[in-house]
Amino acid sequence: MIIVLKAEATRADADEILEKIAGLGLNPLYMPGTERVVLGALGDERVLETLQLESHPMVESVQRILTPYKLVSREMHPHDSVVDLGGVSIGGSQFTVIAGPCSVESREQMRETGEAVRSAGAVALRGGAFKPRSSPYSFQGLGREGLEILRETADALGLPCVTEVVEVADVELVDRYADAFQCGARNMQNFRLLQALGQSRKPVILKRGAAARVEDLLLAAEYILAEGNPNVILCERGITTFETATRNTLDLNAIPLIKRKTHVPVIVDPSHGTGIRDLVAPMAAAAVACGADGLLIEVHCRPDQALSDGKQSLYPEQFAQLMQGLAAFVAAAGKSLHVPATERR
Amino acid sequence: MIIVLKAEATRADADEILEKIAGLGLNPLYMPGTERVVLGALGDERVLETLQLESHPMVESVQRILTPYKLVSREMHPHDSVVDLGGVSIGGSQFTVIAGPCSVESREQMRETGEAVRSAGAVALRGGAFKPRSSPYSFQGLGREGLEILRETADALGLPCVTEVVEVADVELVDRYADAFQCGARNMQNFRLLQALGQSRKPVILKRGAAARVEDLLLAAEYILAEGNPNVILCERGITTFETATRNTLDLNAIPLIKRKTHVPVIVDPSHGTGIRDLVAPMAAAAVACGADGLLIEVHCRPDQALSDGKQSLYPEQFAQLMQGLAAFVAAAGKSLHVPATERR
Amino acid sequence: MIIVLKAEATRADADEILEKIAGLGLNPLYMPGTERVVLGALGDERVLETLQLESHPMVESVQRILTPYKLVSREMHPHDSVVDLGGVSIGGSQFTVIAGPCSVESREQMRETGEAVRSAGAVALRGGAFKPRSSPYSFQGLGREGLEILRETADALGLPCVTEVVEVADVELVDRYADAFQCGARNMQNFRLLQALGQSRKPVILKRGAAARVEDLLLAAEYILAEGNPNVILCERGITTFETATRNTLDLNAIPLIKRKTHVPVIVDPSHGTGIRDLVAPMAAAAVACGADGLLIEVHCRPDQALSDGKQSLYPEQFAQLMQGLAAFVAAAGKSLHVPATERR
Amino acid sequence: MIIVLKAEATRADADEILEKIAGLGLNPLYMPGTERVVLGALGDERVLETLQLESHPMVESVQRILTPYKLVSREMHPHDSVVDLGGVSIGGSQFTVIAGPCSVESREQMRETGEAVRSAGAVALRGGAFKPRSSPYSFQGLGREGLEILRETADALGLPCVTEVVEVADVELVDRYADAFQCGARNMQNFRLLQALGQSRKPVILKRGAAARVEDLLLAAEYILAEGNPNVILCERGITTFETATRNTLDLNAIPLIKRKTHVPVIVDPSHGTGIRDLVAPMAAAAVACGADGLLIEVHCRPDQALSDGKQSLYPEQFAQLMQGLAAFVAAAGKSLHVPATERR
Repeated sequence: MIIVLKAEATRADADEILEKIAGLGLNPLYMPGTERVVLGALGDERVLETLQLESHPMVESVQRILTPYKLVSREMHPHDSVVDLGGVSIGGSQFTVIAGPCSVESREQMRETGEAVRSAGAVALRGGAFKPRSSPYSFQGLGREGLEILRETADALGLPCVTEVVEVADVELVDRYADAFQCGARNMQNFRLLQALGQSRKPVILKRGAAARVEDLLLAAEYILAEGNPNVILCERGITTFETATRNTLDLNAIPLIKRKTHVPVIVDPSHGTGIRDLVAPMAAAAVACGADGLLIEVHCRPDQALSDGKQSLYPEQFAQLMQGLAAFVAAAGKSLHVPATERR
Repeated sequence: MIIVLKAEATRADADEILEKIAGLGLNPLYMPGTERVVLGALGDERVLETLQLESHPMVESVQRILTPYKLVSREMHPHDSVVDLGGVSIGGSQFTVIAGPCSVESREQMRETGEAVRSAGAVALRGGAFKPRSSPYSFQGLGREGLEILRETADALGLPCVTEVVEVADVELVDRYADAFQCGARNMQNFRLLQALGQSRKPVILKRGAAARVEDLLLAAEYILAEGNPNVILCERGITTFETATRNTLDLNAIPLIKRKTHVPVIVDPSHGTGIRDLVAPMAAAAVACGADGLLIEVHCRPDQALSDGKQSLYPEQFAQLMQGLAAFVAAAGKSLHVPATERR
Repeated sequence: MIIVLKAEATRADADEILEKIAGLGLNPLYMPGTERVVLGALGDERVLETLQLESHPMVESVQRILTPYKLVSREMHPHDSVVDLGGVSIGGSQFTVIAGPCSVESREQMRETGEAVRSAGAVALRGGAFKPRSSPYSFQGLGREGLEILRETADALGLPCVTEVVEVADVELVDRYADAFQCGARNMQNFRLLQALGQSRKPVILKRGAAARVEDLLLAAEYILAEGNPNVILCERGITTFETATRNTLDLNAIPLIKRKTHVPVIVDPSHGTGIRDLVAPMAAAAVACGADGLLIEVHCRPDQALSDGKQSLYPEQFAQLMQGLAAFVAAAGKSLHVPATERR
Repeated sequence: MIIVLKAEATRADADEILEKIAGLGLNPLYMPGTERVVLGALGDERVLETLQLESHPMVESVQRILTPYKLVSREMHPHDSVVDLGGVSIGGSQFTVIAGPCSVESREQMRETGEAVRSAGAVALRGGAFKPRSSPYSFQGLGREGLEILRETADALGLPCVTEVVEVADVELVDRYADAFQCGARNMQNFRLLQALGQSRKPVILKRGAAARVEDLLLAAEYILAEGNPNVILCERGITTFETATRNTLDLNAIPLIKRKTHVPVIVDPSHGTGIRDLVAPMAAAAVACGADGLLIEVHCRPDQALSDGKQSLYPEQFAQLMQGLAAFVAAAGKSLHVPATERR
């Protein structure tokens, strides 16, 4: 339920109503806007009727939210949210490219790859230290050492960095090293992890699960927002279908659909979404065209030697070409490519 | 198997080899190029070894085609094919938009819709006279009367037209009225229909089946080419997945994948691919961006009164906006929007 | 709409009402029962209201059918239908096994395989003469010669036979040779073919399409019944999913679901449903257990030399073992194994 | 790699070889059998070649395991494993039924439901205290209080109990109350949780993820076994497909497939596998018929008031009927229904 207050309502009026909402066992929300204050009440909305808020002198209107997700919905928050990821904006009129290797493997690999992606136009660095792998016998990531290398590289390059967190117990550790968390597709419905990330205020890139409907993705984001963290970035990375020629089926329909349903920004990962190096650039351009706010791309200085996802990792030159080709599509979409702070000066 | 002849080989040399190929029960193909003549042999390639063509004095090289489809593959035909659809080119450097209602409903509806799509930039008209419908109690199309209306409207507008054929026995009738056949998703593996369409030389827009892998689509196209009709246009129109928020999942990964595997042009139908009017324009732009050669879009002068597919049909104004927005993406893709012959003069 | 007449209503009363229904452009149905006559009206039910049949003196009740399929629904026909396939019953309290090779390859192969399946307990013979194949270069069946061999073998063995028909133009030919038509998964929505089969009165085994929802299957059956042929046998043969370890995913959930929705019998094809010889027997037993009325199983005298589907074809000994193991499950399901007429004497 | 020692090999011989394996950075395994001792070496098998174990005087043979999973494979362990779940056997010649409500809601609900399922023949009790729910606003389970109620009820009824664990930090707590862990479908690839469960020796019921291939399920089980816990029970509970008439598509093909690939027992959850109360009994029978080792079924004393999964929960009478009907299928499968210890006396 959304309660829009009249223009003359004071903070004391708002507090009075919020207390009544809390008194019914619902979750009260205070959302001040530029012209009006909006209050929210989350939980079983039927009990709210007993308050008869429609007839409160300071209430302008009361509106039910019909979607199963609330804080995430555009009904609650009509304007696009812009998330700040270590100085880089995601959402709004800028188009943002995050790139780097699937896994952090060594100082040299990160430095070489990081320099390549920065010079090609990436404005944030990715790299996994904790790798969820289907087989227990596959490379599982460097762990804490990987986090250290990632941070060092990011600092040296002057870029913010993103890395995956796979367990509640690691949230604090990852928080110390990264500018944003990535919550992987396999953990999209690891609700405890979502709640722990909701306790943070750092951005969370939430990847769509391979068998998750868009509504499931939005409900997963709701878990994070409901804990108080508004800094969520959704990420489409392909779904599981019968098609075996590609690793996943990139569901770009989801992008304009998500844009209509929610104010939360959404980016696309064409590397996992295709699983084939040669398809990454065309699908990156398609992501721009259908309205995505950014890209998450795997690049490796030597893909043939990568410890994970080598087949879908771009060579540095391929990434540079992709970025060159992307510019015209970003312009056609009425956006501008996010430029690193260093170059803006 | 592809047999490349030496530059000095004569037609007689070619015929001699083609006869030997036919003598083994294989299907011989004569494919003259600008510099070299290439011969093909389709069937069980193992028996070819008995001919020892590698050591034939007029043979330069012999190459096995590893894909299950042959005539359709880029190995057989490295350059993009361009198909002529009643004066409109599909494939190559132009981007072609075909539009019109799902079903032909009346003279007025066709005329009104046809004028709207032509003035917005569509260069060919679509409209169904035979409608395959899940329920026997749904509108099944106007049949022959629908074909007549479609032809009349197309002639009046000076546009070529496309319509679906659902049965071998109708091929001749449809051929009399339309400039191109459409073979629908449900008939993608109606092999007898494919063979009948292969006997024609008119273009065939072959839509991907809802559960068909890209390889199945290419094999279905092979049925048409193997009968002698090279004028095939593939069409991605969404696949069946678990996602229920959209009617189908538009698999744009398939576009760059198809472009790598085959020389046959490929277009996208974002109307069926999404099933939601508001998603058509962004997905049309995405189709341009990832390399499609054109679009097939449902437009209706009064979508709320449409007898079929109203929810996914664009209002004329929406289609005009889509076309305006598309221009920049087509330019970004390095192509040019196909302009009607009348305007080119 | 179903119109139940009063007990005293005469045939003339029924005819009067049927004429009125026809006069509105709806499809009238006369369905005499043992105690009451029931009339049906198919089409846009809203126009029926003008007749005010509820107040007709000879009408007991008028009932709307809420499912999109009508004749197929249990609402219209509460008791299980039993279909006679050349003297063999399908549906009701008997469990019926149809077996034979995927394709008719030769007189010897059919005779050897046919004798093996008959002696193991199959009561009808299958064998394909027209084979829909993904690739134009695969074995396409023997055509008319295959039909002749099938008929000869069936006659010699005293079994009825079933074979696939893939095209409207072949319906008459196949009708001359076979006791029942099979409509394959790829043709489940070839509506013209369904209508042609609806013109016949011979049984039609209608296979579920690989991407067809159960509702789509029931609507496809409705096409056949709506043309006047009540002898439809549904067949679950596996759907397309992301699982690649099996050829298809046999959806046995569909069996009890179908049993609740329709009176039409339903059988299971565990050969296509799994694609793996070793899984056929356990899944055949599972089909019995969840309520199927019969099985369609591929058996070949020499599976390793089969021209199609060898991997999923049982060796004769395996089929004999399957039938032995099946008996106890059929008894547990409260049914009896259909015994050939010859043995019943 | 499996290393089979000669009959005369001593423990000292085994230790010598195990040390060499460990020295190469591989994971050494000691698996004594009744006639021969078998050693295992997990990790990058190529380095093992340097040991030339084939020529070691006490080694009889060395065998490579070709599947990506090792400990789980039948190659490593040809005989069926039987897991002891608080005195109840799962696997082998007995068929075991675990039943109870989706969620623990109250002492009364557990007691009433528990008595009903015990008297109908269930030999273990299920009930969720930590509920992973798609929406943050749905009932999330009673937590620790739920565990206490479950334990009390189980003790009072003399049944072992099973409950879900959703987070590494809860493993110790759940371990105190339950006889077995359940790892839910959404956590099948929560690898940290799998590793934590591998540190325990209590049985783990590992449910297949909604988009997980059978191979992914076996690799997930491998994570648990690789940590030293051999007591894994796999559970098929339906996969995500395009079919919307049922909640999930129960993939019974997976049962005989799993039985061929692994020695680990496998049970079926027809409640989640169908999502429809009326389909549970027929699919339970089908699970028996295709070779499952047991069932996990949701029963609630008042399904219409259940806080979760009411639609798929059986009424106590329905469960009693299911158990009665099951007996004949269990006998047909050559197994015997597991009888509670108390009744065996």
